[in-house]
Amino acid sequence: MIQRYSRPEFAAIWTDPARFDTWLEVELAACEAMERVGMVPEGQAAAIRQRARGKLSVDRIVEIEQTTRHDVIAFLTHVEELAGEPARWLHLGMTSSDVLDTALALQSQKALDGILVALRGLRSAVAERAHEHRHTPAIGRSHGIHAEPITAGLVFARWYAELGRALRRIERAREAISVGKIAGAVGTYGNLSPEVEKMALDALGLEPETVATQVVARDRHADVLLSLAMLGTAIEQIALGVRHWQRTEVGEAEEGFGRGQKGSSAMPHKKNPILSENLTGLARLLRGYAGSALDNIALWHERDISHSSVERVAFPDATILADFMIARAERVIRNLVIKSDRMRHNLDTSGGLYFSEAVLLALVRSGLPRQKAYEMVQRCALAAHSGQGHFRDLLARDPDIGRHISQSDLDAAFDLDHHLRHVEAIFARVFDQD
Amino acid sequence: MIQRYSRPEFAAIWTDPARFDTWLEVELAACEAMERVGMVPEGQAAAIRQRARGKLSVDRIVEIEQTTRHDVIAFLTHVEELAGEPARWLHLGMTSSDVLDTALALQSQKALDGILVALRGLRSAVAERAHEHRHTPAIGRSHGIHAEPITAGLVFARWYAELGRALRRIERAREAISVGKIAGAVGTYGNLSPEVEKMALDALGLEPETVATQVVARDRHADVLLSLAMLGTAIEQIALGVRHWQRTEVGEAEEGFGRGQKGSSAMPHKKNPILSENLTGLARLLRGYAGSALDNIALWHERDISHSSVERVAFPDATILADFMIARAERVIRNLVIKSDRMRHNLDTSGGLYFSEAVLLALVRSGLPRQKAYEMVQRCALAAHSGQGHFRDLLARDPDIGRHISQSDLDAAFDLDHHLRHVEAIFARVFDQD
Amino acid sequence: MIQRYSRPEFAAIWTDPARFDTWLEVELAACEAMERVGMVPEGQAAAIRQRARGKLSVDRIVEIEQTTRHDVIAFLTHVEELAGEPARWLHLGMTSSDVLDTALALQSQKALDGILVALRGLRSAVAERAHEHRHTPAIGRSHGIHAEPITAGLVFARWYAELGRALRRIERAREAISVGKIAGAVGTYGNLSPEVEKMALDALGLEPETVATQVVARDRHADVLLSLAMLGTAIEQIALGVRHWQRTEVGEAEEGFGRGQKGSSAMPHKKNPILSENLTGLARLLRGYAGSALDNIALWHERDISHSSVERVAFPDATILADFMIARAERVIRNLVIKSDRMRHNLDTSGGLYFSEAVLLALVRSGLPRQKAYEMVQRCALAAHSGQGHFRDLLARDPDIGRHISQSDLDAAFDLDHHLRHVEAIFARVFDQD
Amino acid sequence: MIQRYSRPEFAAIWTDPARFDTWLEVELAACEAMERVGMVPEGQAAAIRQRARGKLSVDRIVEIEQTTRHDVIAFLTHVEELAGEPARWLHLGMTSSDVLDTALALQSQKALDGILVALRGLRSAVAERAHEHRHTPAIGRSHGIHAEPITAGLVFARWYAELGRALRRIERAREAISVGKIAGAVGTYGNLSPEVEKMALDALGLEPETVATQVVARDRHADVLLSLAMLGTAIEQIALGVRHWQRTEVGEAEEGFGRGQKGSSAMPHKKNPILSENLTGLARLLRGYAGSALDNIALWHERDISHSSVERVAFPDATILADFMIARAERVIRNLVIKSDRMRHNLDTSGGLYFSEAVLLALVRSGLPRQKAYEMVQRCALAAHSGQGHFRDLLARDPDIGRHISQSDLDAAFDLDHHLRHVEAIFARVFDQD
Repeated sequence: MIQRYSRPEFAAIWTDPARFDTWLEVELAACEAMERVGMVPEGQAAAIRQRARGKLSVDRIVEIEQTTRHDVIAFLTHVEELAGEPARWLHLGMTSSDVLDTALALQSQKALDGILVALRGLRSAVAERAHEHRHTPAIGRSHGIHAEPITAGLVFARWYAELGRALRRIERAREAISVGKIAGAVGTYGNLSPEVEKMALDALGLEPETVATQVVARDRHADVLLSLAMLGTAIEQIALGVRHWQRTEVGEAEEGFGRGQKGSSAMPHKKNPILSENLTGLARLLRGYAGSALDNIALWHERDISHSSVERVAFPDATILADFMIARAERVIRNLVIKSDRMRHNLDTSGGLYFSEAVLLALVRSGLPRQKAYEMVQRCALAAHSGQGHFRDLLARDPDIGRHISQSDLDAAFDLDHHLRHVEAIFARVFDQD
Repeated sequence: MIQRYSRPEFAAIWTDPARFDTWLEVELAACEAMERVGMVPEGQAAAIRQRARGKLSVDRIVEIEQTTRHDVIAFLTHVEELAGEPARWLHLGMTSSDVLDTALALQSQKALDGILVALRGLRSAVAERAHEHRHTPAIGRSHGIHAEPITAGLVFARWYAELGRALRRIERAREAISVGKIAGAVGTYGNLSPEVEKMALDALGLEPETVATQVVARDRHADVLLSLAMLGTAIEQIALGVRHWQRTEVGEAEEGFGRGQKGSSAMPHKKNPILSENLTGLARLLRGYAGSALDNIALWHERDISHSSVERVAFPDATILADFMIARAERVIRNLVIKSDRMRHNLDTSGGLYFSEAVLLALVRSGLPRQKAYEMVQRCALAAHSGQGHFRDLLARDPDIGRHISQSDLDAAFDLDHHLRHVEAIFARVFDQD
Repeated sequence: MIQRYSRPEFAAIWTDPARFDTWLEVELAACEAMERVGMVPEGQAAAIRQRARGKLSVDRIVEIEQTTRHDVIAFLTHVEELAGEPARWLHLGMTSSDVLDTALALQSQKALDGILVALRGLRSAVAERAHEHRHTPAIGRSHGIHAEPITAGLVFARWYAELGRALRRIERAREAISVGKIAGAVGTYGNLSPEVEKMALDALGLEPETVATQVVARDRHADVLLSLAMLGTAIEQIALGVRHWQRTEVGEAEEGFGRGQKGSSAMPHKKNPILSENLTGLARLLRGYAGSALDNIALWHERDISHSSVERVAFPDATILADFMIARAERVIRNLVIKSDRMRHNLDTSGGLYFSEAVLLALVRSGLPRQKAYEMVQRCALAAHSGQGHFRDLLARDPDIGRHISQSDLDAAFDLDHHLRHVEAIFARVFDQD
Repeated sequence: MIQRYSRPEFAAIWTDPARFDTWLEVELAACEAMERVGMVPEGQAAAIRQRARGKLSVDRIVEIEQTTRHDVIAFLTHVEELAGEPARWLHLGMTSSDVLDTALALQSQKALDGILVALRGLRSAVAERAHEHRHTPAIGRSHGIHAEPITAGLVFARWYAELGRALRRIERAREAISVGKIAGAVGTYGNLSPEVEKMALDALGLEPETVATQVVARDRHADVLLSLAMLGTAIEQIALGVRHWQRTEVGEAEEGFGRGQKGSSAMPHKKNPILSENLTGLARLLRGYAGSALDNIALWHERDISHSSVERVAFPDATILADFMIARAERVIRNLVIKSDRMRHNLDTSGGLYFSEAVLLALVRSGLPRQKAYEMVQRCALAAHSGQGHFRDLLARDPDIGRHISQSDLDAAFDLDHHLRHVEAIFARVFDQD
């Protein structure tokens, strides 16, 4: 992933040194398990660890790979250079994918753990803004058109709930990917045993693959990339909300604008929701990687290696992007300037048109058939909408309507507090059960 | 979905009559809940049910929609035609999406339930073949190249496990979609209450959406279509396996070939794995719908209706296809002709090359460094591979090798039963824990 | 495709009778070519045509297919039932795909021709609105934020140009798919000849595939579905524009609202851009089918049949949807209510902030470094934006600025006509070169 | 893109220095055009070029961007640092996207030109192998099942044709992207003119966008990424062919295996088609980026910037991958070991079953109805297939068949040269017309 969209600490999970270190951990865990069952003389792993850990040279491994055209063999050759004799006990009965897939599981766990921590942080930020604006009234919009009142806090509460579902998907993907394999060339433990695998993977914090081939099943990896694509859309949903709020004509919120920041090279007056637009685009990339992951699942016989090139790119890139997006989204949320006055202003511009349903219901309760009532209210609403007067006045003056409901019925229908009386109940549902 | 890929009983879930019937159930459940809290006089729902249930006319609703350009209003108008006065108590304080989304949840539940039942049937079939061929030896292949021995049963066991993961994803998607909404125009219960919603949804077997907008959140619907895409790839994995087995040169299995069936209009000798190829294609369609579903999640403000046209097509089509695929896959599995003799023949053609790793390990255990041992074995393997003799003989004659391991070591390395000794343990892991 | 999104006349291209009729045309064209080179006695095709054309029974073919499990063989058997003896001269040396692929090309041509005609109609409608509003000023927006003035006609002109590119892609896809194949089982003309193929395809208006396998290459089919996906996004771009224009706060345009139409079952005042939202969703479906088509290209050896199930669904569904979308988009465009007053109102609300760049340039021309000038203008712009006064006044009162430019320089910078003086040149570029 | 899948020379197109250099070229071309029309005093561009070209400091630009949060402004500020006074004449009336989009077009041209050169190289390699094996007979396979004979050269010829179509798509995408824009904030030339733009873009080798918004239309960028996705599948088709050829049981070709290369860390005998498998995976990534590009097209009003983050990642990554894939595919093709003997062996194993159609046709020509003849041939073919004898012998012994065709008819039907007599004609079609 390009530096612009990476947080270095997170990206470190996927560097060459980190990968080779993880490979070594896997080999050592397997070797120790073999020592415990007597396949390997005691003390070899300890000796190798002492001589090789922290001393692997990426350059040297790459150099060897020029000849072998096989990265795990190059790695093992290099470990043998460092650790000497004991190194021949490494990788016994194992196949490259025992190392690669188990290591990828460990790196993925680390990446998803980082993402989960960041995501909890983002959710906290969203929760804070939700509570802050729990009672800030605003107009709700469907189809981009004014509908009925909501509160700004409800929007944040909704994002909180959606991020919660995204979080649970990632937790499940973490579980799906927490599977390793020390089972040999085609998963049959020809020169190994389930016992050795179990011990090695226990030590690493992984479960054995139920039925491995040469590799761990790739639907698990698709689970990871799909969970990130879904996270991306949850963040896109937030970004889209901010972008709509910040539109000139809406103006209900604005991304924080740093000192010295310039919105446009041509137009000095502009303040654009660029972080949210950026997040919208990054979500598309995450969906792209997920698409590639779906193509990666069905492999030939006991494996073909076509999945590998995809994963070398998509696992780092997608997790780094996801981490970056969460951090950026949190910044957007924390710095977001909510303009309650403008929300109130927009709410009021429709002259209470949004109470049309309450009026409709009052008419129905008065005994009118629904469709009849609908036509009466629509008549006034369309008149108000086309500028022929204030909606409430038009209703009050409408003789048909006056025959069915009283002025006090009308007053009751135009009560905002009444309309928003269940906000607390919704908040309780979101935040209490979490 | 085209008739060719539909099972009529399943497709019936998505017909117009079924949809309108479901809408009526939702309206009645909401009305009954309102009766219980006193919003509506008692007995209205019962009266409407008696007059309208089973009597809805799709043609009439379509006719009304020509004018209203709104399907729910057309539906309600028609119900009023049938049920008269009480019908004005329907839909009180509700918005169309209260009906549409709640009904879509009910139809989706039904569809996923059907899929889950069919999927359990497919898994049973796969389990039977797994046990039947638990000890049928075959060559395992990685990269399409002979690797080490497996058993045919292991392949089925793997498919069983993968289908199990697919099943759990669908169960989770069913949970995600089992959410309705009776919360009004923008989800605030302006003219309703959480209490009424809870009662209505309880009666329908659904949970309330945590924070609804005008609609239920669309990540839930994406969960459904993604779970079907993942199911599709699990079936594609099986289909791919069958196709590879049936290749002329491999010939290890064949789809059952019906009496009178013709493989080719030009070549009478052909027996092609057409069902499996068909399934491979259908999996691509399921991935396509899932892609569309991902674009459906981020909506404007409290909803825009762009998701609706996608869902009108993709929900029926994707579930009908999934149901069809499962049934077809079960047929493939049950009728699959496994050719154990040919498996054994193919296993033997390599002259035991697949024991190369066991020999390698014997050399390592004898004290050789791994890379040294690797070169010695590779030398004989490549010679055997290029036709210079039988692998075991070449090893036996190799003076370098002879210096390190004995003939009985070689015998032990070439023991197939030993190689497959852990199959039972793998089977226990798959079938006991399920 | 569901009836809701189909135009019956167009959908007729893809019915079973239409398909079988096309197969017959292909068989007859091939037979006639064979007659001309003497492979088949003269007069057979004519005899078959007379007895079978217009008399094919879909039910009977389906019935036969129950046994043969092969649709082309079922079809040929049925033709033999109808035409008797001469029918044995059909399909000589041919394989099913010779018929299927050639027929699919013919149906695709027909579908794309229909789409091209409809698309030209849509472009005409867009061109009319462009010329109508060529000089209707409006505020241009980037990032959803007011930028500088445009005219409404420019927006339509842009859509016209984008649809033009979409049209050319479809023309090229039509060319790519206009390829048939009468070349036998694996494309080698084992029992045929390039000469026969050429004559048969000439008669049908197709070119021969350069190197066929059993089938025509599937990148051609992907070209078709990709061109439709691109068309979908061009229409989505229009739909998105309409939706933004119709937002309550923007209100610069509105979809035509039919007499009797109801916007919402709950809120009688609503007029929603539902056609445009619908089109937005349908574009997602087209992208989904294109994704499936990309997976369809790489086939095994001289073909596997996995592409077939995808095409049976995606070719009808995607072309029917595209046709429907074009027609709906044309209706949206023709009925769109453009609110020039509101456009002018919105343009004016920013107090001329959009002239900030002209002021900036005047300052630069006066000798100031750009960044210095930028800061001076931004200062006034941000002040105006935060309500501290009218932008032009703030500039006029700013002593720094006054030192560099005169009041008449300011007047010149605030000239809307000057700003829009190149609209005609752009229109000439769009409409003259087309 | 990761180093593993990059060729440094190509990747250099997308480095920060290259990007900033291109920005400077665009600014200078625009400035020169302005000088020519008198908007800018003469000599400014020359002065800036002398002081700034080749001296831009990426670090310094990044540093400035920390404050401005706007990369183009940071760049301009830096140019002003280098070039002093004349720099204030840069970017006059322009918006950032005038620079960014025009520069992206130039970089894309460069990238596509590189890809086109490489692709022509790959096609040459494929053509060579085609001619080399023009007459190498092999069995053609449909559904993975032996069908009728082809030659190995035909397979290469087919790949050549498919790559040719891929090449033309890229040429068209190059044309589509060869569009720049010097038209100001919303494309209206408010402070510029079409004349200046034309001159500047002419100098850069670009056309003006027909109707620009703030940006060039994004369907052009999708054209680029889609053309690369299509190229990817064309290469995947080759890779898939190689993988199938190299399967142990098929063994008709093998990727060249370097000295010292190791196929497996566990199994020394293995030679795997890893390059082709790798290419198969990379094609999936290219499809993923194309998917993201499709989501990038429909933008808000006169642009939103959501496309930008996608392009920053996808344009470098997809073009670098495509370049890498072409080079790797060429290496695969050039080094591919074709095993003609094995092809012949596989061809012969079916005992001439592939001549079944020729026999079928001989029977039809003798006066039998097609379906009758089919059954007779199928009977013998299935018998031969199930091991009851050699196909030709079974036919010869079949009394029904003997009644209709003679032994010399049978001989004629079993003539391989006759079967392949049209190969030259196909080759002429591929290579002569190109």
